[in-house]
Amino acid sequence: MAEYNPLPLLLVSEQLAKLPGIGMKTAGRLAYHMLNMPEEEVAHFATTILEARRSVKFCKTCQNFTEQEECSICGDEQRDHKVICVVEAPKDVSAFERAGGFDGVYHVLHGLLSPADGITPNDIRIKELMARLSGDVDEVIMATNPTIEGETTASYISRLIKPLGIKVTRLAYGLPAGSSLEYADEVTLQRALENRNEL
Amino acid sequence: MAEYNPLPLLLVSEQLAKLPGIGMKTAGRLAYHMLNMPEEEVAHFATTILEARRSVKFCKTCQNFTEQEECSICGDEQRDHKVICVVEAPKDVSAFERAGGFDGVYHVLHGLLSPADGITPNDIRIKELMARLSGDVDEVIMATNPTIEGETTASYISRLIKPLGIKVTRLAYGLPAGSSLEYADEVTLQRALENRNEL
Repeated sequence: MAEYNPLPLLLVSEQLAKLPGIGMKTAGRLAYHMLNMPEEEVAHFATTILEARRSVKFCKTCQNFTEQEECSICGDEQRDHKVICVVEAPKDVSAFERAGGFDGVYHVLHGLLSPADGITPNDIRIKELMARLSGDVDEVIMATNPTIEGETTASYISRLIKPLGIKVTRLAYGLPAGSSLEYADEVTLQRALENRNEL
Repeated sequence: MAEYNPLPLLLVSEQLAKLPGIGMKTAGRLAYHMLNMPEEEVAHFATTILEARRSVKFCKTCQNFTEQEECSICGDEQRDHKVICVVEAPKDVSAFERAGGFDGVYHVLHGLLSPADGITPNDIRIKELMARLSGDVDEVIMATNPTIEGETTASYISRLIKPLGIKVTRLAYGLPAGSSLEYADEVTLQRALENRNEL
């Protein structure tokens, strides 16, 4: 007997299964839920997503998502436009803003260099970052993740910027707050020791 | 500093986070992916889901999802319409059809009784099942999951049907194929022993 699935369920599942991390099983469960939702709610769901995608732009300065030409952070006169914090994705901007304490501006790369995955400098927003450096910039903070791709990207960009005489810094490695020495991996522990501060 | 999230990202995340099992973190990751998808793909995603929801009907007989008045299984003359297999959801119909070996018809309850969650007999398709039993039916197989809700639902429906003189059966409990005795829980092992078959 062939696979039996009602067509509407199948069509919705297929769409959901295109999203990263959503397999056919989860997609089927979500599709079932959606077909049971009131039609107005599904319409709201579909139109919100489509409208958001249609209205989304990349900030002409920092490349973060925005609905205007320039995002609210880049347009904020109160912030220090001489310090640029370079991150992989919009969620990293949210993380810094949530943490607080940074009053500079950002640059969103939308990806990290990964030769293994065929992601080269032209695939991420490095050109756009370099274009910003002709202005008055004191420091570029490389705030990519402490992973192989994050490190590769940070050192690649750093090599491009240093000749311009602009200070390039990197986020500190160390023990995460609230963690336990016992469970820290060796690299983290070594870095925490190397980067120890005077009290 | 307040939470900072580009509005389009926030709107899409909010919609996705309404789905079961999708938290704000996963929703954010999916939303980011969707805003990076080509606009035509997002349009296809949104319209497919909305169209499917708009076109979906419940089979007038078995209550499974379908695009017609009656689903392809209920409309199939080759199947034995005297044997009705009662399941919780459309995905269970797919599971049986995939497994093969059953040539009767189904009845989809769209839920299980759960007094704790306030799900009473009127919330699932029991009335519709009872209406089918006035016809020529030999057997009703209760194929709800072997969980508390599944058992409760099976015995509730069974008590309604027995007075009609129709045979009511329940799926067998036992060891799953390919499993190991060592890891079987006590209830499963006891049931497998009780329901042992002669070789």
